[in-house]
Amino acid sequence: MVAAKGYAAQNKDTDLAPWSFERREVGPHDVQFDIMFCGVCHSDLHQIRDEWGGSIFPMVPGHEIVGRVVAVGSAVTKFKVGDLAGTGCMVDSCRTCESCQHGLEQYCYNGNSQTYNGREQDRKTPTYGGYSNTIVVNEDFVLRIPENLDLAAVAPLLCAGITTYSPLRHWKLKPGQKLAVLGLGGLGHMGVKFGVAMGAEVTVLSTSPAKEADARRLGAHNFVVTSDREQFKKVRGSFDFILDTVSAEHDYQPYLSLLKVDGVHICVGAPPTASAIKAFSLIMGRKSIAGSGIGGIAETQEMLDFCAEKGIVSDIELINIKDINQAYDRMLKGDVRYRFVIDMATL
Amino acid sequence: MVAAKGYAAQNKDTDLAPWSFERREVGPHDVQFDIMFCGVCHSDLHQIRDEWGGSIFPMVPGHEIVGRVVAVGSAVTKFKVGDLAGTGCMVDSCRTCESCQHGLEQYCYNGNSQTYNGREQDRKTPTYGGYSNTIVVNEDFVLRIPENLDLAAVAPLLCAGITTYSPLRHWKLKPGQKLAVLGLGGLGHMGVKFGVAMGAEVTVLSTSPAKEADARRLGAHNFVVTSDREQFKKVRGSFDFILDTVSAEHDYQPYLSLLKVDGVHICVGAPPTASAIKAFSLIMGRKSIAGSGIGGIAETQEMLDFCAEKGIVSDIELINIKDINQAYDRMLKGDVRYRFVIDMATL
Repeated sequence: MVAAKGYAAQNKDTDLAPWSFERREVGPHDVQFDIMFCGVCHSDLHQIRDEWGGSIFPMVPGHEIVGRVVAVGSAVTKFKVGDLAGTGCMVDSCRTCESCQHGLEQYCYNGNSQTYNGREQDRKTPTYGGYSNTIVVNEDFVLRIPENLDLAAVAPLLCAGITTYSPLRHWKLKPGQKLAVLGLGGLGHMGVKFGVAMGAEVTVLSTSPAKEADARRLGAHNFVVTSDREQFKKVRGSFDFILDTVSAEHDYQPYLSLLKVDGVHICVGAPPTASAIKAFSLIMGRKSIAGSGIGGIAETQEMLDFCAEKGIVSDIELINIKDINQAYDRMLKGDVRYRFVIDMATL
Repeated sequence: MVAAKGYAAQNKDTDLAPWSFERREVGPHDVQFDIMFCGVCHSDLHQIRDEWGGSIFPMVPGHEIVGRVVAVGSAVTKFKVGDLAGTGCMVDSCRTCESCQHGLEQYCYNGNSQTYNGREQDRKTPTYGGYSNTIVVNEDFVLRIPENLDLAAVAPLLCAGITTYSPLRHWKLKPGQKLAVLGLGGLGHMGVKFGVAMGAEVTVLSTSPAKEADARRLGAHNFVVTSDREQFKKVRGSFDFILDTVSAEHDYQPYLSLLKVDGVHICVGAPPTASAIKAFSLIMGRKSIAGSGIGGIAETQEMLDFCAEKGIVSDIELINIKDINQAYDRMLKGDVRYRFVIDMATL
């Protein structure tokens, strides 16, 4: 077995603390890479506190993982020792269902293996995430990481990045189309960057006027304070897409009026409560409300390659792993621009 | 002016009764046709009772209109006297906005002219519908009616037909795909016929077990009683599309679980109340809830031509216009299989 150390939650009521554990030996198709940086996702906190139920403890969170390959299995063809490597939210899937066959491992009908707080495809072995020094992953779920980008700032691309990139590609955002990004946080700031890079006219919709300068710095062309009725009315019927990155409770209904005919309101944030929708508002203009979760492995690679070409990374604040619990407190207050990334050298 | 007679509501509290009125003279681009049959849509009743607000009285309802041309304007090229002709829910639109330019007159940004309870593009002249003996319509909003079909049963194609045909085309229902039709009424029975004709495997979802025989007669391959938890569970994750034709209050949320990855729940019925939706149920499988309203003029013609080719018409009950108020009472009780059509010779 491979000795590993990291930070873990022992149960839902304790803070994260150092923990030693084992990972599987490097099998023929496995890649082992030492973790250099791991992004901090809001879902890490939800899961260590068991807010979604069914959490598996001890839990080593983290699914925005980048590092350098230290060992490869005998049958591995895609990586060699010394390569940069990354892993996002999944470490395996059934590979046989209709979704997997179509490169949509994130929607595996038989249940994929989440990078942490999940189980391997044997449905027994628990998975441990990226708040640790090293990881062993089947090469098919390891991403090639571009050498030309700031590595720490690449980590969040593996969740926040792909989560916003995938729907814009799936719904075929075209140059010149109008994209609204609702909420400017970890997901939202990536949505702005991708929308701009894809040639769309990007508007940030936010409750907070203080975010305008940042929105524009990130490349947004317009900014609308959603609580200002006049500003809100002015953009009625104007957007091809709304990328809704807000995971706090909110109503979708008012935003439907901002969509053009055939417009799509795409939820990538998952509020805890349901929102009431009137069918009539969808019928008048053939509008849709849709959801989208991360992306498939091939698409995640495509996104990383797109980022390399366009020079896109996340805006991050690098932290020492001993400060992770304080970082969670700040994340809860929205006090992060726009993603914490753990420098794993501090472990 | 053209003298016309019909049945009208004088205000929201009176029954329909005979009324004489005038239509505009046949202009250069107009077609006048004598109405032989007019379908009875639930929205007729909503509007004469002013249940949606803003009703214009006196109101002559009816937007499923077929008959034979008796006069054409000097510049008309598409019709000649003696041709069959039809008109659906619209008699004009702005013709210049993005929607109109794309053949989506139903979503005209400047507001199209509804066939009744609307105003012409001068925004003044009220429009009067098909519960009458004759109508004058700009030729661009007159449909060619196939000669090989039962004319009375063609009438409902102009609303119930196109309302169900259009979304199946827009979302590209393919042979072999699995379509669920929720509700088996005026819209639902057309959804089944179109789904079957397009080669889909069609399942009717209904609260009422008594409808199974009829569903199968209409061509449905499967029937699920939605109140039966076991039957409901069995079809989880199995449909590419749900065509939701129900306009009574109901929750969309449970039906999302019946969709496959990338499945779309399409609302063509418009319940009076909103339904609560959880974003998470959309995100897990990239699902959508969408709405769709009638169809454009070109697509309505395409639908009629498709019906001519496939021998598709509505299942109707022909009535005398003097029985219209009783027909409404029966419609409210769901006691119609599946559309009342007024024989205008009885006027």
